[in-house]
Amino acid sequence: MVYELYYWPGIQGRAEFVRLALEAAAAAYVDVALRPEEDGGGVPALQRWLEDADLERPPFAPPFLKAGRELIGQTANILLFLGDRLELAPRDAAGKRWAHQLQLTIADFIVEIHDTHHPLGGGLYYEEQKAEARRRSKEFRVNRLPRFLGYFERVLKSNPAGGRWMVGARVSYVDLSTAQIVAGLRYAFPSASRTALRRCPRLRALHDEVFARPRIRRYVASGRRLAFNNDDIFRRYPELDG
Amino acid sequence: MVYELYYWPGIQGRAEFVRLALEAAAAAYVDVALRPEEDGGGVPALQRWLEDADLERPPFAPPFLKAGRELIGQTANILLFLGDRLELAPRDAAGKRWAHQLQLTIADFIVEIHDTHHPLGGGLYYEEQKAEARRRSKEFRVNRLPRFLGYFERVLKSNPAGGRWMVGARVSYVDLSTAQIVAGLRYAFPSASRTALRRCPRLRALHDEVFARPRIRRYVASGRRLAFNNDDIFRRYPELDG
Repeated sequence: MVYELYYWPGIQGRAEFVRLALEAAAAAYVDVALRPEEDGGGVPALQRWLEDADLERPPFAPPFLKAGRELIGQTANILLFLGDRLELAPRDAAGKRWAHQLQLTIADFIVEIHDTHHPLGGGLYYEEQKAEARRRSKEFRVNRLPRFLGYFERVLKSNPAGGRWMVGARVSYVDLSTAQIVAGLRYAFPSASRTALRRCPRLRALHDEVFARPRIRRYVASGRRLAFNNDDIFRRYPELDG
Repeated sequence: MVYELYYWPGIQGRAEFVRLALEAAAAAYVDVALRPEEDGGGVPALQRWLEDADLERPPFAPPFLKAGRELIGQTANILLFLGDRLELAPRDAAGKRWAHQLQLTIADFIVEIHDTHHPLGGGLYYEEQKAEARRRSKEFRVNRLPRFLGYFERVLKSNPAGGRWMVGARVSYVDLSTAQIVAGLRYAFPSASRTALRRCPRLRALHDEVFARPRIRRYVASGRRLAFNNDDIFRRYPELDG
């Protein structure tokens, strides 16, 4: 089966967590909205689903994944589904739940990362909320960033299968997402993330291991991985980095 | 098995979505932190888990549920687990995924509801971010509130089993959570929610059906359901209601 992934063109966004899983498993997929509009891609490809009033199970927002006849929304839910299919999750039910729990904590972290530059909401431009973004980012750098990274470091340390992977003894979608978080934080907050990651040797090693995996390296080298940029979740605004 | 639920005392918070599922199914559970400290309750009961350095699978934050030897965190993950056990979810895998997808969209909505009074983050008091809360709440009332409620109304309408429940032909944990959202919004934003709900007859009916269910009525009448209050996710600050 060829999976169809749907997400806003031009940014990695939440879809990147799904892409890394598809790429790590060498799954066959089409990144539909990245195709030209004349080939059925672009934003209209998303809107067709979002505005289809006859859809029984409409997604609220991208990303969503078409797998056969099923349309699956919510990043963590997509990964819960794919983790199983692509053998990127533990095989036992409790392990699957634990992996999903971590992915949902990553999702919470992503919201807080996004809100550093949009504390007043997505309806206003960054330029309209710069002073507020500065205050929120300070709170983020001082309290939230070390708290989340410290938690993930602790999870690695507590893994009875050794501190290499987040869950069990094999790579899982949680590792891919965690590595993406480290990469994104280094882009957005080069200074604050360097400081916070000093206490997180396992997270730094996890990042390096994930991005050294042959399939992930090929994906990055292919040019298909979009570059981080300031329309995305992770944004580099030096004034927010302290 | 007696489930053990752990959550901050004094507020409904995210635990209420779990409580409603446990109550609707008449499941045996202990709300551990609501017991007196001398009986092993209170905040120390939470901290024991949160600070246990030997825990292999530590939760990031409450709520978490102890089910036998398993400690499960993240509200939507707990409900995914309980939905199955308590027969409050569809039986087929695609239906379970759809229910979970909706619950994750509810979780996103909850973050946005919370952020109306804490746009600069949880590290500052409301009183320190009142002006920002006003701006964020306006954006919420004008754009986000109608968008989320409109989406959930559409989901009810699109349900091929009839517009009564969110998923399939039976009540599920998603219905309980949706009703709780309606109740909370009516508490926090009496004026804005009345306006937005005018276009959502199915959501209003769903709320009434859920809170008219005998077990939920008994729960509310028991006094065990904590009252909405201004330390909680849903807060009544008239200045944020427009």
